[in-house]
Amino acid sequence: MEIKKWKLLGSEYLFRRPWLTARRDRLQLPDGTIHPEYYVLEYPTWVNIIAITSDGQFLMVEQYRHGLGEVLTELVAGCVEDGETALDGAKRELFEETGYAGGQWELLTVLSPNASANNNLSYSFIATGVEKTGTQHLDSTEDIRVRLFTRDELKDMLMRDEIKQATMAAPLWKYFALNP
Amino acid sequence: MEIKKWKLLGSEYLFRRPWLTARRDRLQLPDGTIHPEYYVLEYPTWVNIIAITSDGQFLMVEQYRHGLGEVLTELVAGCVEDGETALDGAKRELFEETGYAGGQWELLTVLSPNASANNNLSYSFIATGVEKTGTQHLDSTEDIRVRLFTRDELKDMLMRDEIKQATMAAPLWKYFALNP
Repeated sequence: MEIKKWKLLGSEYLFRRPWLTARRDRLQLPDGTIHPEYYVLEYPTWVNIIAITSDGQFLMVEQYRHGLGEVLTELVAGCVEDGETALDGAKRELFEETGYAGGQWELLTVLSPNASANNNLSYSFIATGVEKTGTQHLDSTEDIRVRLFTRDELKDMLMRDEIKQATMAAPLWKYFALNP
Repeated sequence: MEIKKWKLLGSEYLFRRPWLTARRDRLQLPDGTIHPEYYVLEYPTWVNIIAITSDGQFLMVEQYRHGLGEVLTELVAGCVEDGETALDGAKRELFEETGYAGGQWELLTVLSPNASANNNLSYSFIATGVEKTGTQHLDSTEDIRVRLFTRDELKDMLMRDEIKQATMAAPLWKYFALNP
């Protein structure tokens, strides 16, 4: 009993704004059942970065997240822009949000934020040996505080569920599993 | 420079359907800047389960995920219904999707699927010693195949990013970190 993809019968956009694009699809299941309203949220590729300074500290950001209504400590993260690779976008976001750049970069993991609703993926990079080469360049609707943590502090926060967002917790767990 | 919450100036619903509720908020940042359209997606609490059978196999489900457009192997997951606790919802979803029940249950982690856009949290439970006591009871728009994996198989899949959804990868990494 192999699981098959569903068939797309029709598609219509409900909403297209810079931060929310919602589509309604009409789908047919393999047994013929019609799903009349399946909602898909279209987003650009997301990126986040486990950035480690040349003296071994982990570069994090603190900001207010209005979906959850809390101030959170997070990995530097953002959206890839048109014409950028995921790596380009990650380097740009790191520099804009923190003023840090350089170091050795590698891709750690690619995950889905929500495979049932979102059409996008989230790329997580490790950047080792980053250094402060400039200053923060924030949009008018960004309010971000840069914070440095030791490896042990970050591991404790992760264990206590204080790195709340799953797209950030998963790559951090993978990083610590690969670098015990 | 402490990061503060933003002030809600107004709120309006754009869309309210069983699988998509979207709200537009008007917000004021601490420096006075107005964010005229901040979109929040309202969802019920989500749950997923690391379910381990009495002979030590990991109970997973395979299904088509139309957001990403792929057939994925996942933890059993679902939404908490009105009047249920997260634990009630997790036990109900496990039984409906697989026919397995019983065992010892504990909460492993609580994460945000997307702290900037989603208002909900995802609760992950460990259920040890579950047994097949019934049959699958699926909705007409569910097409789910139950699969059992050994611990090593699942760990390899996780390492290869084959457990694609971040809300499922993060608790699995935490489980393997706590149970090496």
